[in-house]
Amino acid sequence: MGEPSNREFSEAEEEVMRATYRALREHGYADLTVKRIAEEYGKSTAAIHYHYDTKEALLAAFLDFVLDQFVESIRDVETTDPEDRLALLLDELLVKPQSNQDLSVALLEMRSQAPYKEAFRERFRQNDEYVRFMLKAVVNHGIDEGAFDDVDADHVARSLMTIIDGARTRAVVLGELSALETARETASEYVDAVLRQPDR
Amino acid sequence: MGEPSNREFSEAEEEVMRATYRALREHGYADLTVKRIAEEYGKSTAAIHYHYDTKEALLAAFLDFVLDQFVESIRDVETTDPEDRLALLLDELLVKPQSNQDLSVALLEMRSQAPYKEAFRERFRQNDEYVRFMLKAVVNHGIDEGAFDDVDADHVARSLMTIIDGARTRAVVLGELSALETARETASEYVDAVLRQPDR
Repeated sequence: MGEPSNREFSEAEEEVMRATYRALREHGYADLTVKRIAEEYGKSTAAIHYHYDTKEALLAAFLDFVLDQFVESIRDVETTDPEDRLALLLDELLVKPQSNQDLSVALLEMRSQAPYKEAFRERFRQNDEYVRFMLKAVVNHGIDEGAFDDVDADHVARSLMTIIDGARTRAVVLGELSALETARETASEYVDAVLRQPDR
Repeated sequence: MGEPSNREFSEAEEEVMRATYRALREHGYADLTVKRIAEEYGKSTAAIHYHYDTKEALLAAFLDFVLDQFVESIRDVETTDPEDRLALLLDELLVKPQSNQDLSVALLEMRSQAPYKEAFRERFRQNDEYVRFMLKAVVNHGIDEGAFDDVDADHVARSLMTIIDGARTRAVVLGELSALETARETASEYVDAVLRQPDR
């Protein structure tokens, strides 16, 4: 299973991460420079390079920072009832991101660079593996408790991730936040149809 | 409905488009320059600028070129039986792209720039609208013929596009072509469940 990085950030590093976040929101990924991050940080680029050798290393750390927070929000879903828990996970994955479109824009840019940047690809893969693990666990739990049919939980998790990633891409590319609402509905329809066969 | 551009390309322009395609495959979108396209074209950058003022105008034309070809391949699906036709459309949208991963990588980079480049966003939107129109038409045809339930064809088309876009993104970001096969299965499950209720 793809564990979150659990990378520890010092107070100064967290400050750099928050500066990176502001710089990304303002300039976007393509126009992001260490100089612009330093401006947000309120210190010199040397102060940034004290923590991160290269822009790529800084951005890889930023992905850890963002994706770990995201993983925590998923892990914090507290209900244990499998049906409720699956619904809450899907809300967390599809409804919450609507509040942070700037970050979604920057993340799609970084996603599109994964084929060129091993450090990015590795992080997106780990995050994907972790979220799929969470989805699979709740589906298997539901199967054990008789709430769901005996389906292929791994395939269901991949299908749901496909719907989630489609929504994320569409919200950014088409500039339509409604893509996330549509996908939340699609995910519900899929769950109802595949996890709860009428002949059960 | 979002018509394809139907932009006419002269022979010279088509050659520039093919050179752009080769340059994209070789260097990727982020490192693409008019100079590199000119190298593939075998002529000077001035020869390129004779046709296209800016790199952005050239790339917008390239999107027309690629997306129009794509639209033609969809339009050429010949069966009229709604169930077969929907299956063939989904094959065209999810199975065929597996043969051209380099182009998919470049397209995701361009998609990620849509929030910054109106010309790109406009083209992706039109293409999306057109494909959804095709999917909606086949679903409505199936409803009329009694092959499908009386569903919200617009929503079904959006759901299928979400699955398709998710697969495209995942194949590139995770570097897993199997994401397209998974999504083809997800789309079938969705179609079976939503378009053919057992209580029909």
